[in-house]
Amino acid sequence: MSDDAAGTPEMKRERRGGRAGRSGRSEAAGSPQKPFRQPRRRFSPVEIVSADELEAIHLASLNVLEEIGMDVLDAEARRVLQASGARVEKGGERVRFDRAMVLDKIATAPRSFKLHARNPAHDLVFGDDAVIFAQVASTPNASDLDNGRRPGNRADFQNLVRLAQSTNIIHMTGGYPVEPVDIHASVRHLDCLSDIAKLTDKAFHAYSLGRDRNRDALEITRIARGIPDEQLDREPSLISVINSSSPLRLDAPMATGILEMSARGQVIVMTPFTLAGAMAPVTIAGALAQQNAEALAGITLTQVVRPGAPVVYGGFTSNVDMKSGAPAFGTPEYMKAQLVGGQLARRYGLPYRTSNTCAANTIDAQAAWESVFSLWGAVMGGGNFVLHAAGWMEGGLTASFEKTIVDVDLLQMVAEFLDPLDVSSDALALDAMREVGPGGHYFGAAHTQSRYRDAFYAPLLSDWRNFESWREAGSPTAMQKANAVWKDALARYQRPAMDPAIEQELDAFVARRKSEGGVKTDF
Amino acid sequence: MSDDAAGTPEMKRERRGGRAGRSGRSEAAGSPQKPFRQPRRRFSPVEIVSADELEAIHLASLNVLEEIGMDVLDAEARRVLQASGARVEKGGERVRFDRAMVLDKIATAPRSFKLHARNPAHDLVFGDDAVIFAQVASTPNASDLDNGRRPGNRADFQNLVRLAQSTNIIHMTGGYPVEPVDIHASVRHLDCLSDIAKLTDKAFHAYSLGRDRNRDALEITRIARGIPDEQLDREPSLISVINSSSPLRLDAPMATGILEMSARGQVIVMTPFTLAGAMAPVTIAGALAQQNAEALAGITLTQVVRPGAPVVYGGFTSNVDMKSGAPAFGTPEYMKAQLVGGQLARRYGLPYRTSNTCAANTIDAQAAWESVFSLWGAVMGGGNFVLHAAGWMEGGLTASFEKTIVDVDLLQMVAEFLDPLDVSSDALALDAMREVGPGGHYFGAAHTQSRYRDAFYAPLLSDWRNFESWREAGSPTAMQKANAVWKDALARYQRPAMDPAIEQELDAFVARRKSEGGVKTDF
Repeated sequence: MSDDAAGTPEMKRERRGGRAGRSGRSEAAGSPQKPFRQPRRRFSPVEIVSADELEAIHLASLNVLEEIGMDVLDAEARRVLQASGARVEKGGERVRFDRAMVLDKIATAPRSFKLHARNPAHDLVFGDDAVIFAQVASTPNASDLDNGRRPGNRADFQNLVRLAQSTNIIHMTGGYPVEPVDIHASVRHLDCLSDIAKLTDKAFHAYSLGRDRNRDALEITRIARGIPDEQLDREPSLISVINSSSPLRLDAPMATGILEMSARGQVIVMTPFTLAGAMAPVTIAGALAQQNAEALAGITLTQVVRPGAPVVYGGFTSNVDMKSGAPAFGTPEYMKAQLVGGQLARRYGLPYRTSNTCAANTIDAQAAWESVFSLWGAVMGGGNFVLHAAGWMEGGLTASFEKTIVDVDLLQMVAEFLDPLDVSSDALALDAMREVGPGGHYFGAAHTQSRYRDAFYAPLLSDWRNFESWREAGSPTAMQKANAVWKDALARYQRPAMDPAIEQELDAFVARRKSEGGVKTDF
Repeated sequence: MSDDAAGTPEMKRERRGGRAGRSGRSEAAGSPQKPFRQPRRRFSPVEIVSADELEAIHLASLNVLEEIGMDVLDAEARRVLQASGARVEKGGERVRFDRAMVLDKIATAPRSFKLHARNPAHDLVFGDDAVIFAQVASTPNASDLDNGRRPGNRADFQNLVRLAQSTNIIHMTGGYPVEPVDIHASVRHLDCLSDIAKLTDKAFHAYSLGRDRNRDALEITRIARGIPDEQLDREPSLISVINSSSPLRLDAPMATGILEMSARGQVIVMTPFTLAGAMAPVTIAGALAQQNAEALAGITLTQVVRPGAPVVYGGFTSNVDMKSGAPAFGTPEYMKAQLVGGQLARRYGLPYRTSNTCAANTIDAQAAWESVFSLWGAVMGGGNFVLHAAGWMEGGLTASFEKTIVDVDLLQMVAEFLDPLDVSSDALALDAMREVGPGGHYFGAAHTQSRYRDAFYAPLLSDWRNFESWREAGSPTAMQKANAVWKDALARYQRPAMDPAIEQELDAFVARRKSEGGVKTDF
């Protein structure tokens, strides 16, 4: 035999011996994780459209904003936009933006900024070459292998939040990992945000669902950080994802969210949800032009509200299955949209948000290939903020405990991939090659022995046993192995420390707001 | 609700409706595939080490060749190397190469060349921005869901070859997709190459397992193409993967393979198998320095034999599981090695070979993430020839029928991703946006209706039904869905036409060589 796979007879024996060896079950309790850190992308992002083509998309979106415009469903937002030069239809909701106004306004947005967590060790850089992985958000269902799929509830919500806290590669929550519908909508934000503030010490997100919820979230953030209002106004400490209601509409709660958050100098992640063929043109270039128009409109509003307010350019363009209308994710079209989205964000000098998505119903090969294709597009496209990075299934309809662990493994591998390769003279290993020489073996070399323990990424789930050992162990799949890992992580979870005075203040605030009835739910 | 995943209530209803719609079972018989074509990479490959770091690896490998050298186990190969300036140890096998000689020799290798198939429509470009996907090769076992894992046999071999022929994204076979051990080793190459020549009309590969086998393969190739010897000598029509026996050794059959193939102007894919921590230093930079030394030694030999002989720079550096010694694939370390391997190949102006690998024992999430990570490294690293692109499992110990289909889907997605994005004025879809306007829907738009049938890649396997429909259908995984696809493909397989005179000549040659006893098996 002579090819790689088979190698020499000697090599085959060695390899089979190797694969018959110890189990490689590194998923056991206490599997080491690297310290909390943001990966840095050290290479240039990949550009799949030329500068001219990028300009064509840019110009198309400016044409859309000038000629068609956006429907903005909040009067106050229309008022401030008009005061800054936008043309508002008399008695209507349509707002048109001249290109000079758009370009002028978006120029004041910062290229990068720091997001403060209540634990400063978990502060995050948005922008430049830094990458943030945020947990899955906003799914209506949760699932795990033991209990299957069920509507979101507070216990699952809390457990998923605990996983976000105890996993260093999940840099922050990105919303409610699952929507706890067993909490009444009038007070859900109070319970959920207070849970997140207590169960994690990482940065977090608030939904923009009306002024009162935004204000409650800002106050909870302020209390949790233990800082005065003036400091909160100076320090981005809370993010809110704003989705335009594509095509070309900004709903009232979304517009209000920008008004409230940007006024306080908090972070808007402006993300149109432009499914090509449904809420956007069937062509990816057209969907991107519309995405860009909607994103620029929202970003413009942030800067009208407060020049210099932190804002992130969000891309969420994907395609649908044209046979059924079902949204598809992690597709070739999705990857292209991710890469061009990054080119657009960099054109405007803004941090770029993208996602780790899949449309699969179970954690099979499809779930993994769609997720890794998504991460490929995210990382190579220069994504700075990767939402839904861990746990997302079914196009966002389910947060899975096992998928969380699969994704954590994937994210850790991506972070490892992004780490620089050591090309020092020591790493080049000439002495080791001299020692081993032609035909030798490196297992016993001093160079190997002093390094082997942490030479390579130790995966949580990968099963590298040989076929026979794996079969004897019951032929476990990655999904099955993940089940034990999240249970172990939850068992070892420890609530992060919180100053008792802060906790008291937080509880008192939540109690008071609840006693006031929370917020209206008929916005 | 306000995040992407959940969207507005309207959006949620639409999406659930969408996912509840028709099945999306595009895996059914006759799923359309695009015509045979090579994908082209239109962006610059990703560089993860600097020019200085690349130079350090390059210089380290030149030091290795100059100072340590390689053991070359074939006397004739040592003789021709010595005649071209290499220093050969008196009475020994060690060959040392001065850097000037190496650089002088490798400079004559072509940047790119055409590989001729017996059907000219299946000719392939090696090099530049062109990509070739070659089928899995050299596995000792085959497997499928119905009959499990079994030692390689001719029936499985033939069926896998048939899948390579009927699948346009598999551009060629890359060896025996499984080793048919039910054919005696003395005549196996005759039966297998004649099977491949008849069952496919794509380009193919011959193992270098001694002079007689190489010569038989060259003759079968000549007969299958129906050309005279002189034309074969001018036209690359056969490839052979040469693995150095790492560390730093070139076995006799491998050296002989280079002598035989390069003398006839046929293609050598020079691929060290440098597992970091086993046959190479435990550091990836060290493993790459050794890979590069071994590759340059083999490439030097090709050019000594015949300046201008077509040769491919092969990289196959990965890491082992340091707990068990088992080889790992599709890891972060593997990806880094793929990217730097590409940088090295481009430094020397040579086509670059890499692989689509995984170490998984079943087609679960692990198999998919390892494969897509491999493809990520291959595509972004500028891989020109991706061996083992379809069907590989268990680190190369098994060729799987279902994995073949999963990989075909992955490769088709990668090809789609590499296709340029249409940014024409028509694709930018301003008219469609005018027609639909804010708050509208694109399903019914003329722009959508005229394009939806082939707007997006139609996957073979992806299950985009909603959870309930998927569960009612029996909760199929991608692996299970792939089972029906390969059976359907085999049922529809048609043998490509072959001139009866050529088939007669081929059969007569095989019969004669068998009557002579085939080849010695004690090389």
